[in-house]
Amino acid sequence: MAIHLGANQYGKAENRVVRIYRDTPRHQIRDLNVSTALRGRFDAAHTTGEQGDVLPTDTQKNTAFAFAKEKGIGAIEEYALTLGERFLAASPAAEGARIEVEEYAWERIEVDGQGHDHSFVRTGGGVRNTIVNVERGKAYVVSGISDLVVLKSTGSGFHGFLKDEYTTLPETDDRILATSLVARWRYEHTDVEWDKAYDRIKALLLEKFATIHSLALQQTLYGMGSAVLEAHPEVAEIRFSAPNKHHFLVDLSPFGVENPGEVFIAADRPYGLIEATVTRDDASDPGSAWHATPGFC
Amino acid sequence: MAIHLGANQYGKAENRVVRIYRDTPRHQIRDLNVSTALRGRFDAAHTTGEQGDVLPTDTQKNTAFAFAKEKGIGAIEEYALTLGERFLAASPAAEGARIEVEEYAWERIEVDGQGHDHSFVRTGGGVRNTIVNVERGKAYVVSGISDLVVLKSTGSGFHGFLKDEYTTLPETDDRILATSLVARWRYEHTDVEWDKAYDRIKALLLEKFATIHSLALQQTLYGMGSAVLEAHPEVAEIRFSAPNKHHFLVDLSPFGVENPGEVFIAADRPYGLIEATVTRDDASDPGSAWHATPGFC
Amino acid sequence: MAIHLGANQYGKAENRVVRIYRDTPRHQIRDLNVSTALRGRFDAAHTTGEQGDVLPTDTQKNTAFAFAKEKGIGAIEEYALTLGERFLAASPAAEGARIEVEEYAWERIEVDGQGHDHSFVRTGGGVRNTIVNVERGKAYVVSGISDLVVLKSTGSGFHGFLKDEYTTLPETDDRILATSLVARWRYEHTDVEWDKAYDRIKALLLEKFATIHSLALQQTLYGMGSAVLEAHPEVAEIRFSAPNKHHFLVDLSPFGVENPGEVFIAADRPYGLIEATVTRDDASDPGSAWHATPGFC
Amino acid sequence: MAIHLGANQYGKAENRVVRIYRDTPRHQIRDLNVSTALRGRFDAAHTTGEQGDVLPTDTQKNTAFAFAKEKGIGAIEEYALTLGERFLAASPAAEGARIEVEEYAWERIEVDGQGHDHSFVRTGGGVRNTIVNVERGKAYVVSGISDLVVLKSTGSGFHGFLKDEYTTLPETDDRILATSLVARWRYEHTDVEWDKAYDRIKALLLEKFATIHSLALQQTLYGMGSAVLEAHPEVAEIRFSAPNKHHFLVDLSPFGVENPGEVFIAADRPYGLIEATVTRDDASDPGSAWHATPGFC
Repeated sequence: MAIHLGANQYGKAENRVVRIYRDTPRHQIRDLNVSTALRGRFDAAHTTGEQGDVLPTDTQKNTAFAFAKEKGIGAIEEYALTLGERFLAASPAAEGARIEVEEYAWERIEVDGQGHDHSFVRTGGGVRNTIVNVERGKAYVVSGISDLVVLKSTGSGFHGFLKDEYTTLPETDDRILATSLVARWRYEHTDVEWDKAYDRIKALLLEKFATIHSLALQQTLYGMGSAVLEAHPEVAEIRFSAPNKHHFLVDLSPFGVENPGEVFIAADRPYGLIEATVTRDDASDPGSAWHATPGFC
Repeated sequence: MAIHLGANQYGKAENRVVRIYRDTPRHQIRDLNVSTALRGRFDAAHTTGEQGDVLPTDTQKNTAFAFAKEKGIGAIEEYALTLGERFLAASPAAEGARIEVEEYAWERIEVDGQGHDHSFVRTGGGVRNTIVNVERGKAYVVSGISDLVVLKSTGSGFHGFLKDEYTTLPETDDRILATSLVARWRYEHTDVEWDKAYDRIKALLLEKFATIHSLALQQTLYGMGSAVLEAHPEVAEIRFSAPNKHHFLVDLSPFGVENPGEVFIAADRPYGLIEATVTRDDASDPGSAWHATPGFC
Repeated sequence: MAIHLGANQYGKAENRVVRIYRDTPRHQIRDLNVSTALRGRFDAAHTTGEQGDVLPTDTQKNTAFAFAKEKGIGAIEEYALTLGERFLAASPAAEGARIEVEEYAWERIEVDGQGHDHSFVRTGGGVRNTIVNVERGKAYVVSGISDLVVLKSTGSGFHGFLKDEYTTLPETDDRILATSLVARWRYEHTDVEWDKAYDRIKALLLEKFATIHSLALQQTLYGMGSAVLEAHPEVAEIRFSAPNKHHFLVDLSPFGVENPGEVFIAADRPYGLIEATVTRDDASDPGSAWHATPGFC
Repeated sequence: MAIHLGANQYGKAENRVVRIYRDTPRHQIRDLNVSTALRGRFDAAHTTGEQGDVLPTDTQKNTAFAFAKEKGIGAIEEYALTLGERFLAASPAAEGARIEVEEYAWERIEVDGQGHDHSFVRTGGGVRNTIVNVERGKAYVVSGISDLVVLKSTGSGFHGFLKDEYTTLPETDDRILATSLVARWRYEHTDVEWDKAYDRIKALLLEKFATIHSLALQQTLYGMGSAVLEAHPEVAEIRFSAPNKHHFLVDLSPFGVENPGEVFIAADRPYGLIEATVTRDDASDPGSAWHATPGFC
């Protein structure tokens, strides 16, 4: 029996890179959370402690900040691809680089009906992100959104399910459906108008959540994913992780009060957790696109 | 030497009350986090364990949910006042009731350019809240906003400060100013159009944050507070708690790269913490308005 | 009507000061979270932005770190008192300084049955803290513990409570009682063996939680507080904030399974929240001891 | 082009199961967080919304609580295996079940030098957990620990690393090394004395962290993992995810104070993140053991 190093990865996580564009009085802001990691032939670093092949995580951090100025920050996918290529060039032992970027959205503060030049307020409505894996000669882009909290107050049921001796759930054809959606989609290639694609996919996910009459969260997610694949040939597959944030109808009958779907208690735990992939038959091989990302987002 | 009970309070915290209005196909949603507490002559409950005076926290919870249907939920201030009065009526030993309500905002999901009837997405941009203290014959309302994350990319300096042997901070007349604002304002009375007042005060706070050239976060807060007091005679005082979320300019000179106010690292801890009250000379006595609320929000 | 500045405070929050004592091969570690704030005649800083009286929060931070070496870190109460005095000396406009310190506990890692010289593992069991308020010629010390999670699986009931039309809670004489305790006690003076007092008070709080047959969390807290005041003449008063972390008995009868107090679901929200002060008749005036601390811890 | 369902999984997450053993006056407590999920041929549930094959997440929850009484809770691995088998039996369409359990540790409160019969205090020092994947005829067990916060105040360096034009990090042969360790190890089979194995592996991980002179966190992790594999033939591989929690030496020279490795600031973000697998040559095929678990813990 011999012991050896298996899969490995190292990097700097959660660099909070803030870039201000101030070439004109009307500033722009890009507010990122950047995590980088390298993987490859780093056996010596582990087995003997010899660090000659190791580009320090501190250097990775420096590069992330320097590139924000040197290369600028366009779409987060581009910035991540550029960083990934750089790390492979700088680190001969690396076989792959994984760059994850979250972007926080800001709106201009309104003053006299106009957006202010250099003052901003953080918005909600989901956090855009990307995970880019670069290998020598290959690049994979998985982009997505997290923390997209949505709710429909009707148009959702759950019935006809399998029953056993531990089943107590009543069937319903009218309930609240709510989730804090995580969606990630894999692009077929890197020849994409990233910002436009993101905006359209987000809008489509929301629209389908709204308009699909839900027989289960599974069916809603599948419908949302199918719509994205149909409208976006550049998307190979899409994965969802969606907590079913239960809203329980409160029993007001002890107080002589009816409650026809009007008063709910929002519960924390436990919650349903629905995870699914929707893919197309002719999708390309995912390669390392999902490297070190949990199976379902 | 004798030992006795001092100030005390008990209740049910963080009831997640969700109310759907569905009288027409165009639903409305109110999504609240409700905490209630009673205080008063509850000595026996503490000293002997005799609970005859104690309206259980479970009953307080039931009432919060039942009232969401029986009384409905208009402005959160009204709902809180109604709950507070109820608890005093139901609990003879209580001398005061404190009701704290947070409201989470939702927007309609856009479908074909229209807001959907019953599908919603959670928004950011601050959380509205109120703290109501009701005593027999008196009612105090302190309303506010939290988690209002704002940033200005210029128009902020800090110089001319006191120096001692531990001072290393350089003076600056151009820096990022960012905070996650908590503001609470005390109303003089309860004859207020709550929703309209909230909307206007929030807009005014944002506008002043944007337009005041900041010499320090203290001066910005004071200017924001003064503007509210000037425009809103129904507001007696306003308190702020504002972390100075530091954005440090990154030194890119080791890489031969200039950084004229463009690339920053957003730091987590430590952070400055600026707390201030702005009040008017003729403000009414606050009574128990700030009961059990930290000194500065 | 004139507008003016009311109460105010500013400082640097959450300085994570880690001090290693390494004079011998057997190292010691002190791991602190330090927040400092000054209050007083800082009107100009707010109203005109003139900062001549303002000792920057950055300087406060520098001092906290420098004193960790210059003065060393004994009991956190001593360290906080020393910092507070320093800030008043350095800041003529300040009328008071508030220093809050949390300390994270570490144990030596066991190797061959012995605690290792310089390797440590973080422990749980509550976080020690202190809040010190220093004014010119006066000093107030409030020390405490937070995150002390305790549970008793029997020896707790709740019955005989007030009922109204919203009451549905059944009475019980056997339930789980659990809380995540916050306790803060005010010392009468600063001539205290801080570490010894803390250890004894913590042990006494735990012992009383265990041995008091609970008729309500209120009565348990009162008993715990009384015991501290009886045993510690140096303590003037003690305040508690204790969430009643509900553990609900699960109804297993639909599955033909009895559940005599054996299987519970631990709930998150809502939770009861019980807050109380136990004090002695002849306690000294609290002065600013509780400045800017929520009413009940 | 056709669209179809890919990998999928659904279940109930974070059931907070608390089990009291009270057959004698000396109670015992098991405090768990249980997440269950099924995967398999659930196409109809997604594509048409037909739920006939779906054992609801609510039923999964009921079973987790009922089994806490019916089967009892021994080692969490056993409890998880039993639940997994049950779900496969109850759900013909399921091809696999994934059961994840965390266990929170409690100690008896000490009263008069003795552990109390039914009063407990939560401890720190890491959270034990297991992930069990059951398929028809196969079962995989990955157990581990999270939140194990460790630090060594010397015996750690970092030098000889690769340099490029973005490198500014100085080499060091004496620094603080600290991490919040996540470790997961895969067992070769289920014929294991679970509690004993866990205790020994945890102790060994701590001991090796303490005694290995660290040339990098990578080398420390590899040494910890090798030691586990050498001592535990029942362990096939072990994976680590370890944030390098930076403690930066504070520059006190502006104040004329030396700082020879004594005063540090503990930083939050960014942090290094080191992930590695240590495995043995003759390890069995992992099958679905790591299903839906992030690549490196």
